[in-house]
Amino acid sequence: MMSTPPWLTTLETPTPQAGYELAVKLSRMAVKLTQPSEDVRRELRHVYERDADALIASSHVVAVHFATIAAANDYWRTT
Amino acid sequence: MMSTPPWLTTLETPTPQAGYELAVKLSRMAVKLTQPSEDVRRELRHVYERDADALIASSHVVAVHFATIAAANDYWRTT
Amino acid sequence: MMSTPPWLTTLETPTPQAGYELAVKLSRMAVKLTQPSEDVRRELRHVYERDADALIASSHVVAVHFATIAAANDYWRTT
Amino acid sequence: MMSTPPWLTTLETPTPQAGYELAVKLSRMAVKLTQPSEDVRRELRHVYERDADALIASSHVVAVHFATIAAANDYWRTT
Amino acid sequence: MMSTPPWLTTLETPTPQAGYELAVKLSRMAVKLTQPSEDVRRELRHVYERDADALIASSHVVAVHFATIAAANDYWRTT
Amino acid sequence: MMSTPPWLTTLETPTPQAGYELAVKLSRMAVKLTQPSEDVRRELRHVYERDADALIASSHVVAVHFATIAAANDYWRTT
Repeated sequence: MMSTPPWLTTLETPTPQAGYELAVKLSRMAVKLTQPSEDVRRELRHVYERDADALIASSHVVAVHFATIAAANDYWRTT
Repeated sequence: MMSTPPWLTTLETPTPQAGYELAVKLSRMAVKLTQPSEDVRRELRHVYERDADALIASSHVVAVHFATIAAANDYWRTT
Repeated sequence: MMSTPPWLTTLETPTPQAGYELAVKLSRMAVKLTQPSEDVRRELRHVYERDADALIASSHVVAVHFATIAAANDYWRTT
Repeated sequence: MMSTPPWLTTLETPTPQAGYELAVKLSRMAVKLTQPSEDVRRELRHVYERDADALIASSHVVAVHFATIAAANDYWRTT
Repeated sequence: MMSTPPWLTTLETPTPQAGYELAVKLSRMAVKLTQPSEDVRRELRHVYERDADALIASSHVVAVHFATIAAANDYWRTT
Repeated sequence: MMSTPPWLTTLETPTPQAGYELAVKLSRMAVKLTQPSEDVRRELRHVYERDADALIASSHVVAVHFATIAAANDYWRTT
């Protein structure tokens, strides 16, 4: 798909917050694979970061990935 | 991603209602990470809090996070 | 978040139908937390209850919450 | 919510197809609870049954409910 | 709902690919149940098969059904 | 559905990244099955790869497939 250095070697994270940040990364990665040009992505970002609908839609994708990562980490349960 | 104080140390909450409120927080955090300016976010909020479609979309994101948090808490089952 | 009386103390319901009604309540609660004015919400409702897209989007949110509540109740299995 | 006769007493169905039909019913019920007027719903239906986006969105809601019902029936596994 | 011959007797498929094809079938069936006219559906298809948003939305519905079918088949695990 | 060579024989992948790439493939396959013309798809791609909403929607579909594939691989847990 792309011969890049590995960018996802594990879903395990030390904390829920690190899991959330990984979810943000995963949600952006699909955009990157479809639109590889950093210039175009930067341009698009200027638009959508001021568009409430796009921000909510982005947050939705993060939520789906966070569900997966939380399950992978057994919800970081301490007991 | 941002060097902020920790904002998510556990998914465990004492009650379903506290879990729901955490779900609201998680759904807003992705917006904050994409649009860090509090001024812009306040402006956007004035628009979308009067837009039924945006409110329903927000509620959808909360529902996805609530599913994750409910599972993390074994649904707060008492038996 | 809001100092209201508790509105969600358990996800357990006696029947699937009561679970569905709880799902409706949960999907509306996120809207209420984002738009606390009852007047504005009533106004928005006049619009979206005649808008097929908004009604379907609402139904989608109910479906996500119903999935969570159904799991919490072990699907109300009788056997 | 509404004092109607019970319309959902179990999620168990004899076959996957009956489960799918129940999913269709559940996805319509949320619309009915938000827009109780049968006349308005009939009118809206005339519009959205010719609107590809609305049909796809409806199908999405059915898919979410079907996932819940399938889990409730242990996927109708025969073995 | 419709007195048609049975169209869904099991969620079990021999391979992931057959499961994916069943997911496509399930996502189309909800459209068929809401818009039974084959003529109208054919017309709508001419439009949405050239509309990127509709194609992505369709793909989303397939993804939800595929998740259900994959779980039903225990992910076709070989070990 | 299409008499093509098999394109999906297993959901098992050696790494999370390979699982993510399979999720991208699955999300595109539904589009291919609905719009088989490569020319039309290329044309559509020129449009949606510059449309933030479409890119986010695509990323959402990838997230749903990734959840399925991650579960199939028991989240690539090492312990």
